Amino acid sequence: METIRIGLMGLGTVGTGVVRILNDHRDDLTRQTGSTIEIRRVLVQNTEKPRDIALDSSLLTREAEDIVAADDIDVVVEVMGGVELTKGLIERALRSGKHVVTANKDLMALHGAELVAIAREHGCDIYYEASVAGGIPIIRALTESFSSDRIKRMFGIVNGTTNFILTKMSQEGASYEDVLKEAQALGYAEADPTSDVEGLDAARKMAILATLGFRMNVSLADVDAKGITGVTKEDIQYGKRLGYELKLLGVAERDGESVSVSVQPAMVRTSHPLASVNGVFNAVYVYGEAVGETMFYGPGAGSLPTATSVVADLVAVVKNMRMGVNGKTLSTAYKEKKLQSDDRIFGKFFLLLHVEDKAGVLAQITQAFAANEVSLESVLQQPNQENPKAEIIIITHDTNMSGMKNVIRELESMDVVNKIKSVYRVVG
Amino acid sequence: METIRIGLMGLGTVGTGVVRILNDHRDDLTRQTGSTIEIRRVLVQNTEKPRDIALDSSLLTREAEDIVAADDIDVVVEVMGGVELTKGLIERALRSGKHVVTANKDLMALHGAELVAIAREHGCDIYYEASVAGGIPIIRALTESFSSDRIKRMFGIVNGTTNFILTKMSQEGASYEDVLKEAQALGYAEADPTSDVEGLDAARKMAILATLGFRMNVSLADVDAKGITGVTKEDIQYGKRLGYELKLLGVAERDGESVSVSVQPAMVRTSHPLASVNGVFNAVYVYGEAVGETMFYGPGAGSLPTATSVVADLVAVVKNMRMGVNGKTLSTAYKEKKLQSDDRIFGKFFLLLHVEDKAGVLAQITQAFAANEVSLESVLQQPNQENPKAEIIIITHDTNMSGMKNVIRELESMDVVNKIKSVYRVVG
Repeated sequence: METIRIGLMGLGTVGTGVVRILNDHRDDLTRQTGSTIEIRRVLVQNTEKPRDIALDSSLLTREAEDIVAADDIDVVVEVMGGVELTKGLIERALRSGKHVVTANKDLMALHGAELVAIAREHGCDIYYEASVAGGIPIIRALTESFSSDRIKRMFGIVNGTTNFILTKMSQEGASYEDVLKEAQALGYAEADPTSDVEGLDAARKMAILATLGFRMNVSLADVDAKGITGVTKEDIQYGKRLGYELKLLGVAERDGESVSVSVQPAMVRTSHPLASVNGVFNAVYVYGEAVGETMFYGPGAGSLPTATSVVADLVAVVKNMRMGVNGKTLSTAYKEKKLQSDDRIFGKFFLLLHVEDKAGVLAQITQAFAANEVSLESVLQQPNQENPKAEIIIITHDTNMSGMKNVIRELESMDVVNKIKSVYRVVG
Repeated sequence: METIRIGLMGLGTVGTGVVRILNDHRDDLTRQTGSTIEIRRVLVQNTEKPRDIALDSSLLTREAEDIVAADDIDVVVEVMGGVELTKGLIERALRSGKHVVTANKDLMALHGAELVAIAREHGCDIYYEASVAGGIPIIRALTESFSSDRIKRMFGIVNGTTNFILTKMSQEGASYEDVLKEAQALGYAEADPTSDVEGLDAARKMAILATLGFRMNVSLADVDAKGITGVTKEDIQYGKRLGYELKLLGVAERDGESVSVSVQPAMVRTSHPLASVNGVFNAVYVYGEAVGETMFYGPGAGSLPTATSVVADLVAVVKNMRMGVNGKTLSTAYKEKKLQSDDRIFGKFFLLLHVEDKAGVLAQITQAFAANEVSLESVLQQPNQENPKAEIIIITHDTNMSGMKNVIRELESMDVVNKIKSVYRVVG
């Protein structure tokens, strides 16, 4: 039986999971691939560190060269993260005929198209299921299962940290700051949470999903990202009262041949399948012209869930090796990228305004919407307890982004509007 | 560019959808497969019937021979249904080197293993994503995405008709009979609804899912099926009060190397992701040892959703043809089938009992559970308005099936128990 020799780069959370699955599921993997999969070398920063894992310590190396330049490695499994340095290593691996499986969203969001091209040129595979939404097989769904369809819309809860925070804020009425601290204590948020809470991590994943779903190279720079640092418990409580859950939502939409991709906190109607995706779970909602509504739900991170996706990719690579078709199954973005302009991006909006509590205010405010042809679905005005002013909550009908921007500019200039407290997209 | 010649067998709901997608998405399909996919012949019962579809009527034939025995057909797409006759045709197609895509769950549940073996022997593909849960790509998820994992449990809402009925009964408090009539009027239920409401349709799908998920040939005869004809609105309302939704649930579980597969109405806790799968939607919840909890949600039937899965399979077959690897990617059930005995199948149960309203009844009843080592999670006793007797609702802790059967036998023999109104499994 043929032995497939793996070079594992990284032995952190995901790397450890990969070793564990390769050990625990050895028989099943052999039956499915007709090959023995063997870890031949493992790149680590510290070869002396004690590790709670069944792995011969003589396999550890601190030299990436021992893997990417080695003759006795067939597949490189990259789970160490990083962008520029890692890109160089993966390129060298591909150019020397090694297949690559990676869980690296940053790398794929920034350099995916280039790396896929290099892989194809050298008859190599590069698979990256684990780079988006951990254990959820959304990449295979987009590239294979919906190959027959035209995807119109994808909504993703693709960042577990922020979903944990927003779920806690919703369920316990807690403040953003308190829940962030709790998430950090539990290890769900990093000491520096910027990448998660500012929506950058989600933006990277949405760039990858949009590229695959729309079959055009959407880069990170094309994704308009806004995070959750401005979300207050009042926003969430008002949303709930009106039948919405606030979620950090990746939104990728196609209208004709033009697309728009963004990440922002959004009010999701309670009846929408995404509204009940709670805690660190992820989900991607995909609307295809033919298939209609689908949703893929599961763990977005974690050692074994992410490693499940990594090893499933590895199985695919090994099967391709046995059939001699590596590099031929890669999905390519064959469509020209066209980004939608603001005046063609449509959505519903939720606004929370702090206003003067006097006659004619609501008339003046609603006039600003009417003047910009933004029609309203619901309006709720009420006295505010803590502040001597009134609050108005407005939910619009579908309107275009540029009309909405005009409305906001007008509201900002009004004396009777003390503050535009919140503006959120509404989904469902 | 190579032309791939399709013989379509069946031009009903799904067949029409296939023609539509092949027409509408022609450019995308060509880009992805590097081939032109062309419908060369279509098997119908009536060639004269007017059809609202862009299809040259000269392609229609009433002779299956024109497709399965033809030299100018590369792939047979079977969407006509039926078992014995259809099996013979598909066998002949495979033996003459034609690849097969089918949406036929009855056929695959009964003869899947045999057909896959014939396909493999002749270097042909046989793909059947559309046979389970219409537009949800669950078969590809089980065979490819979770190739790296060991699946422990699958719960499926895989029959849209019964889910529509139970959803309506839950949301509107309506009776089974009334909602069934409504479903029939809407075309969601057949004039003879037996196969759906008795759980047979779901059982076929669960046999297919269990075969793929557990990698052993689970046949229809191995699936213990119970339908929803005995479900009353009282059951549903009591369930809701206790925090459950009643769903017709396919349950496939593995314990060590032994498996059990069943279909039955079950109480699903409201917080479980399956509880909010409503109407004609389907969902399959998959729990893998490594990946943990995942769920796949989408349309379980319908012309275009089902055709999406059929055409995605067709794209896979055509890609395989270009790479010369047909018949090599088929998933096989390489494990020996082992069915779990009742005393090793565990579950929680919901019981609704009609009892005499007198002292000592509850003690006598709970003693029957204790004697069989079935422990109780909750007990609710209340007077019944319509009947002069009392009602008791009991939810057990996890217990084995044979213990539960003993309890039921004992309850049946008690004078104070007038009727065991309902017994349901509890999930979540």
